[in-house]
Amino acid sequence: MSAKSKGKQLRFRCWIDIDGERFFGPGRAELLALIHETGSISKAAKAMGMSYKKAWTMVDGLNANGSKPYVISHKGGQQGGGAEVTPAGLKMLKSYQKLNKRLFSIVESNIDILKLI
Amino acid sequence: MSAKSKGKQLRFRCWIDIDGERFFGPGRAELLALIHETGSISKAAKAMGMSYKKAWTMVDGLNANGSKPYVISHKGGQQGGGAEVTPAGLKMLKSYQKLNKRLFSIVESNIDILKLI
Repeated sequence: MSAKSKGKQLRFRCWIDIDGERFFGPGRAELLALIHETGSISKAAKAMGMSYKKAWTMVDGLNANGSKPYVISHKGGQQGGGAEVTPAGLKMLKSYQKLNKRLFSIVESNIDILKLI
Repeated sequence: MSAKSKGKQLRFRCWIDIDGERFFGPGRAELLALIHETGSISKAAKAMGMSYKKAWTMVDGLNANGSKPYVISHKGGQQGGGAEVTPAGLKMLKSYQKLNKRLFSIVESNIDILKLI
């Protein structure tokens, strides 16, 4: 996320690592939000311009490394299956979004640092 | 920077881009601080485990892209030259460090997000 002033941008990123490996961050948050919105990993991947394989690997990492799965996928059925974000996944997503908003408000209120350039 | 809980880390990074190119961030801030401390680009580079060439390129980018130089280097002399951070460079460094402290305090007070994993 970033706050802008002409061509200058004050940017930040916040993420969670487990044992030095990425667990959660802006990409996974966007993916979860889109799976929740579309009910489908492939639609979410498409909306992000990401391959299905990459999206699936991210979902698989979230499900494997957290204590509870964040996404449950349903195979088959009339609509060719689908996916849903679990309550644990939604809770993480909402907390992460809230934290990002707090960080963004700090960044925004410090935008004058760009005038020092 | 990060706040930790066992193997889990809540991390963040804040940086400045100009026209989509990195201008300032944690690496350049550390380099400026070390140049200020040691009075030498090569000593600062060594302390960061970075090649002199890479450090010089970073310094050159700061000097070329900001409206004022951040580092002035002196050639020759008894001590084989040296470098100093300008008042403009110190001002940017201090503002950036202050901003990072503010962001860190938000991150630290939101460390409970790690319990959701």
